[in-house]
Amino acid sequence: MQDSIEQYMQTVGQQARQASRVLASASTQTKNHALSAIYTALQDSEAAILAANQMDMTKGRNNHLDSALLDRLELTPTRFKDMLHGLKDVMNLLDPIGEITDLAYRPSGIQLGKMRVPLGVVGMIYESRPNVTLEAASLALKSGNAIILRGGSEALESNKAIAQAIQHGLKASGLPETSVQVVNTADRAAVGHLITMSEYVDVIVPRGGKSLIERISNEARIPVIKHLDGNCHVFVEAQADLQKALPIALNAKTHRYGVCNAMESLLVDEKVAEEFLPRIAELYAEKQVELRGCRETQRILGSTVKPASEEDWYTEYLGPILAVKVVSGIDEAIEHINKYGSHHTDAIITENYSLARQFLARVDSSSVMINASTRFADGFEYGLGAEIGISTDKIHARGPVGLEGLTSQKWVVFGDGQIRQ
Amino acid sequence: MQDSIEQYMQTVGQQARQASRVLASASTQTKNHALSAIYTALQDSEAAILAANQMDMTKGRNNHLDSALLDRLELTPTRFKDMLHGLKDVMNLLDPIGEITDLAYRPSGIQLGKMRVPLGVVGMIYESRPNVTLEAASLALKSGNAIILRGGSEALESNKAIAQAIQHGLKASGLPETSVQVVNTADRAAVGHLITMSEYVDVIVPRGGKSLIERISNEARIPVIKHLDGNCHVFVEAQADLQKALPIALNAKTHRYGVCNAMESLLVDEKVAEEFLPRIAELYAEKQVELRGCRETQRILGSTVKPASEEDWYTEYLGPILAVKVVSGIDEAIEHINKYGSHHTDAIITENYSLARQFLARVDSSSVMINASTRFADGFEYGLGAEIGISTDKIHARGPVGLEGLTSQKWVVFGDGQIRQ
Repeated sequence: MQDSIEQYMQTVGQQARQASRVLASASTQTKNHALSAIYTALQDSEAAILAANQMDMTKGRNNHLDSALLDRLELTPTRFKDMLHGLKDVMNLLDPIGEITDLAYRPSGIQLGKMRVPLGVVGMIYESRPNVTLEAASLALKSGNAIILRGGSEALESNKAIAQAIQHGLKASGLPETSVQVVNTADRAAVGHLITMSEYVDVIVPRGGKSLIERISNEARIPVIKHLDGNCHVFVEAQADLQKALPIALNAKTHRYGVCNAMESLLVDEKVAEEFLPRIAELYAEKQVELRGCRETQRILGSTVKPASEEDWYTEYLGPILAVKVVSGIDEAIEHINKYGSHHTDAIITENYSLARQFLARVDSSSVMINASTRFADGFEYGLGAEIGISTDKIHARGPVGLEGLTSQKWVVFGDGQIRQ
Repeated sequence: MQDSIEQYMQTVGQQARQASRVLASASTQTKNHALSAIYTALQDSEAAILAANQMDMTKGRNNHLDSALLDRLELTPTRFKDMLHGLKDVMNLLDPIGEITDLAYRPSGIQLGKMRVPLGVVGMIYESRPNVTLEAASLALKSGNAIILRGGSEALESNKAIAQAIQHGLKASGLPETSVQVVNTADRAAVGHLITMSEYVDVIVPRGGKSLIERISNEARIPVIKHLDGNCHVFVEAQADLQKALPIALNAKTHRYGVCNAMESLLVDEKVAEEFLPRIAELYAEKQVELRGCRETQRILGSTVKPASEEDWYTEYLGPILAVKVVSGIDEAIEHINKYGSHHTDAIITENYSLARQFLARVDSSSVMINASTRFADGFEYGLGAEIGISTDKIHARGPVGLEGLTSQKWVVFGDGQIRQ
């Protein structure tokens, strides 16, 4: 059985590699035609896909999946419409492939530039949301990549039905059906093969819980675009305009709790703490946000604030809890962020020009903001059109990853017979 | 002993991480001042460095190192001067750090851009050339990175003497001496720690033989900028101008043999093979280049050409041997290159506009050239100023890697109090 799974994954990999060669030189027109044919195929298959999803839902309920997971799994007619809307958005994005930049003559007479090209084959590993299947497939196709999709076993029927419509559309447009493949087994060994077949897969994008991503990135022999947590900070500096600081601190924490760009720790300069903390605490109290503070925070806000442990500074709560620390100034704030943060998104609130510049330069995170809510760190807000993931690594893609994160640049040289002297 | 090496490497790593925080926000002026102070310190230490190198040479001779290795190890006064000249070149490069690009307003009112920042800490692993010590250190400093250098044990005394001068210069300019550290032990366990300390090291750059690089990239838990081989091709297409094809095919093979951008396989369209092959074979014969050909090549050139085995198509000879294959056209040529090549550098010789465009788009290599010698794939020829390595991977840096390959971009957001709706 293990052998046959390895064999199966090798076949999937080989097919993806072959398809990627075709996709790499497919024209924008061909790729858009395929996306449009997929749109039509999905419209035609709506009933079949929703029925397949109902099979997954029934199985999920019988297996006593928790309600949050069932909610993510469910495809309603509205969600189906949203999914198709997302596909249209990707179709309308500019094709990044083939763009040549920085073309210039060198002293030797050669003309040198950089050409944007697809990475090749993307391996996507995700949990139960079936809409990710279409989103990832459409981004991969638009950027000329083949993709292998390994969704959660709970969503297998939904994903297979969506993939079938996608392949129908690919076929209609003359692109290889194997450009998009759904791994057809719930066996976990398939993931192990997917993340180590470096001859067939160029990049792995995992989406899901921290433990899944940690395991994948430890075992992968292929580059992984990932982020483990979003432990984001807002630092209210001494010269902050509190009319900006209050709504930003409120928005960054309470706009949505379960997202990676929500603030998890609030840092406040000691010079404004007495004025700022009671006012923001009142707003948090209305939203029933639990505060865990350093000693100084407790002194100012009183005993309703629980003490924050060392562990709290590292924690991504993903819920209505916030760690609060009073700091002596920008140096302590930046040290705290670089030490305890997850290099995702951090913001300073200040009217001081020089300190704002310092914060930008010295905070080692994928997004660094001045006077704005951390909630803006998002592929749509950044204008990437769509987002295949968010990266807190520094190599290759960083921050929200859109189409460009699925591409690379190669050097191109135009000569007239030049030889090296 | 193993424990103490782990402890030692942890300390080296921690110090590098701390230094990197200072370097990341060091001004261009400070960094240039440091490079200039290093220049002076090296001039002052010339005698001591050459004496240390003589110790390595004596030890090397006593250990019966082969003459090629001893040649790479030796620092003559001329080579010392070249080394200092390279340092001046790096000093004169533009500082890439802090550059903000693509700054534009989003519909939400935030102003979004990308800022170029250092990677942090570079781990460099190389063999016996002591000049790499200075080259890598100067590129790292210029791009705001700390660096940990692990040279070959044969060059330990030379490297320590160079590092001492570098640290002297760092001290004089007020930057942490630990910005550049040479691993002070010949124990191989040190490499094992260096390539797995992901909390302290952001990127590994290995330079050396294929087996060293293969081992490092298999065991590393940190991204590696590497290339394993340079199996480069020149494809003489049917509409090639033979007045260009002949000098390029000669130059790409014979300009230097032991380099990664030398041609190792020549592909010739069957429509010009009868005319082209005898003429180029004559030129190769003068240079005593051994040819290994496919059947058709043997038929045209006669029995002096040895048969090429399947293995030959994969081989990087790094010497005066060339594999030659007659192909049916561009499709076979591109398939051959993508299958047997190492994705380093490949060139087409043609006057046909459409086929040249096809070759550019479809060959999956880090440098793709039209009518130019593969020997141009080089950091200096590409104007990068200097080269820390060459990458045949697609993720992050690709092709010759200069300063920019040691940097990353983070997103920066300028706001006026914006919150997410």
